[in-house]
Amino acid sequence: MNESNNVSAASTARPADFARVSLAEYGDGLRRQAFGARATVTRLLDAIDRENRTLDAFTYVDADGALEAARAVDALVAARTDLGPLMGVPIALKDLYAARGMPLTAGSRVDVRECTPDEGTIVRTLKRGGAIVLGKTRTTEFAFGTFNPSHPTPRNPRDANVHRMPGGSSSGSAVAQGAGLCAIAFGSDTGGSVRQPAALCGVAGFKPTAGRLPLDGVFPLSPTFDSPGWFADRVDDAARVWQVLSGEAPARPRPIDTLVLGRPVAHFFDDLDDDVARAIDDCERALRAAGARIVPVTLPPVTDLDAAFGGYLAAELVTHLGRARVEANLERMDPVAAGRITLGLTLTAEAFLDLRRRFTLLAQQAQAAIAGVDAILTPTCPRVPPPIEPYRSPDKAAAWSRDALRFTRPGNLFRYCGISLPVGGGALPVGLQLLGRAGGDTELLAIAGVVDAIVGRPNATA
Amino acid sequence: MNESNNVSAASTARPADFARVSLAEYGDGLRRQAFGARATVTRLLDAIDRENRTLDAFTYVDADGALEAARAVDALVAARTDLGPLMGVPIALKDLYAARGMPLTAGSRVDVRECTPDEGTIVRTLKRGGAIVLGKTRTTEFAFGTFNPSHPTPRNPRDANVHRMPGGSSSGSAVAQGAGLCAIAFGSDTGGSVRQPAALCGVAGFKPTAGRLPLDGVFPLSPTFDSPGWFADRVDDAARVWQVLSGEAPARPRPIDTLVLGRPVAHFFDDLDDDVARAIDDCERALRAAGARIVPVTLPPVTDLDAAFGGYLAAELVTHLGRARVEANLERMDPVAAGRITLGLTLTAEAFLDLRRRFTLLAQQAQAAIAGVDAILTPTCPRVPPPIEPYRSPDKAAAWSRDALRFTRPGNLFRYCGISLPVGGGALPVGLQLLGRAGGDTELLAIAGVVDAIVGRPNATA
Repeated sequence: MNESNNVSAASTARPADFARVSLAEYGDGLRRQAFGARATVTRLLDAIDRENRTLDAFTYVDADGALEAARAVDALVAARTDLGPLMGVPIALKDLYAARGMPLTAGSRVDVRECTPDEGTIVRTLKRGGAIVLGKTRTTEFAFGTFNPSHPTPRNPRDANVHRMPGGSSSGSAVAQGAGLCAIAFGSDTGGSVRQPAALCGVAGFKPTAGRLPLDGVFPLSPTFDSPGWFADRVDDAARVWQVLSGEAPARPRPIDTLVLGRPVAHFFDDLDDDVARAIDDCERALRAAGARIVPVTLPPVTDLDAAFGGYLAAELVTHLGRARVEANLERMDPVAAGRITLGLTLTAEAFLDLRRRFTLLAQQAQAAIAGVDAILTPTCPRVPPPIEPYRSPDKAAAWSRDALRFTRPGNLFRYCGISLPVGGGALPVGLQLLGRAGGDTELLAIAGVVDAIVGRPNATA
Repeated sequence: MNESNNVSAASTARPADFARVSLAEYGDGLRRQAFGARATVTRLLDAIDRENRTLDAFTYVDADGALEAARAVDALVAARTDLGPLMGVPIALKDLYAARGMPLTAGSRVDVRECTPDEGTIVRTLKRGGAIVLGKTRTTEFAFGTFNPSHPTPRNPRDANVHRMPGGSSSGSAVAQGAGLCAIAFGSDTGGSVRQPAALCGVAGFKPTAGRLPLDGVFPLSPTFDSPGWFADRVDDAARVWQVLSGEAPARPRPIDTLVLGRPVAHFFDDLDDDVARAIDDCERALRAAGARIVPVTLPPVTDLDAAFGGYLAAELVTHLGRARVEANLERMDPVAAGRITLGLTLTAEAFLDLRRRFTLLAQQAQAAIAGVDAILTPTCPRVPPPIEPYRSPDKAAAWSRDALRFTRPGNLFRYCGISLPVGGGALPVGLQLLGRAGGDTELLAIAGVVDAIVGRPNATA
């Protein structure tokens, strides 16, 4: 009987602007019918229409599907049905996530649809929780590397004048979120593919402990190291997503003067851009001033395993794609991706299993190394986003990937969870990385919330 | 104060003859001090002294250690301390099991001591439960295959005149148990290396579900497929070992007229020796007459995965040994073992991972296939033990291994548990194999006890 009233209430509700409201605020407004899901989705679809030509973040937009889902959310709100913290939240999916009714390319010109035939647990859980999928975002080919010189690259939203590196492989999602085209964007992180684009695009990017969330329905680069991850404006928004996907209640906030943060004595502060060094210095000073202790921490050396990482991932990827498909399609692949995948055709089982054993030992050492601190603090990426133009040769592109992932890849090797927070007061964004122990995702998010409140960059889209 | 009395009681106690008494009877007698552990061990050490020159089952005998342990057991009995069902039970260990104070060779002339540096959970648990380790038994090199033409082969105890195949790889343990030189002998089963020598030596051989018991301290052939296993005179003896190692209480015996046994429609009855065909036919008839139902069951085909199995194991073995050690020592290895290991040097990671995926799928299909029956019934080995002499060329030896493991290897591929029971009334032993679902070890042992009571061969050493 109230249906017409409710529909009209929903249709007069305002759209939310996620640059100004947190997911908590949006959720409150939605339930009070001050915000409408349909109005919000309509606003975002308009923005995508307007801006995606320049940003090239989305590769597929499901306008009808998103509007249908939004209408259902508004109806459920009117019917006083609460689907939880992500109800009505518009999201974007890196094009490694299968979603019913949408194509899946894994960023490749090679047809890989049959490799990930159906929607998996994460997308299903998000939808059941009322999240609204706007569409798919650009990934580098097979998520292998941060930049494909022969493919389009989304535009970093932090510079309107110069086409700067957005980071990768989850480049489209970082840009979509950073440009305000969705509330939350999903990526995947095997060597830093969420944290590093988060740093370069000036947003928060969280990567849970690998293995903590199921990855069925996500095109795999490496079953050993893959983790999902997501981009958000704020740590608290990222934490709400974790609550829904993990089923864990939030941890209590930690008073800043009880926090002990470890600062690695080697590797993680080598060869930084001046803007990065300055921003991280400022963070450390501010955190100390607020009462946190920052102590030196010695992490296990990763040199040779870091070098072997690419071949190991390649072998796992070749297994998923199938040798025949890889060999038949090398010419159609981006030269950087093809060059890296080729390593996977010849790695022997013995070398693979030996690496697997050594990766396991390294992770054990890393768990011991982090035991004495609450989290580890490093820069996320040694660079602020450079212009893309000088990196268009395959050699330069490959070198950029290696350099840009220097500080994130160890987190994957160590089996840590991690988050990058936007910090720094300069023109270009800088990311502060916090790494937490395996399985300590809920605690890391609580710590990151406290740290963000002290050193976080004012919301760049606000 | 009573010490002298107790010691004298123990020293006047009789030795047990495991050809005549079950472990349950031995345990009762031990606790009543009718049997003495020291007397029993002394008797077995004498028998080993006398017979091992011919049988060549033991490669190392720890007489002093065994007597010390037996003395401790008698003292604990006198002190009314009960260590459980294996208290005072003399056992032998295939020389893949590390045991403190004993050498470890894995059947190889290559020095592999550092590969398995310390005693593991199984041996530790057995010792804590009062089992007495007599020594180490001969294994084929790295447990890879059933017969090494260039190594000594233990003598099948069922024929005093002709040196017949004892089966393998756990040949020494099967012979030691079959000849009454210990109560229980431990082996390992990756493709049938417990069940098949059990069949050829006329004893019971049980292989639990792979992964159900920890294999630390056991030199690995294949972490994917390895399972421990043990030889016993009777199913009930084997079941007591399982109770101690698994911590599970025995399952209630199943009335025979409630049992549904699956008879595979293909592969498992192809090309049998006449004696084997006749013995298994007799078993089926007797079980039906007793009220069991025997129904046809269709198992997944294994053809190409069965063929790929050897290369997969080889890759895992090369990983454990290290490529350098393998390449430096191929000349010192038996030609059959070396030939098989060489496959592991070149298998690619992609092929390995693809096999792993397909092995997992096959095991899933196999679990579905067994769901409708209580157990599957097949011959264990298509052959009765032939004379060794005609198999001394590497080609013939390799062909014998392939043929002799035809009916056991699928059980490993299917991830079933399995047991071989000695059956048949002819001069040479025949094994009846029962296979159970993954994790259904306790149930399989209960079913095997019921089946053994109907079709079991009278104890051959009695």
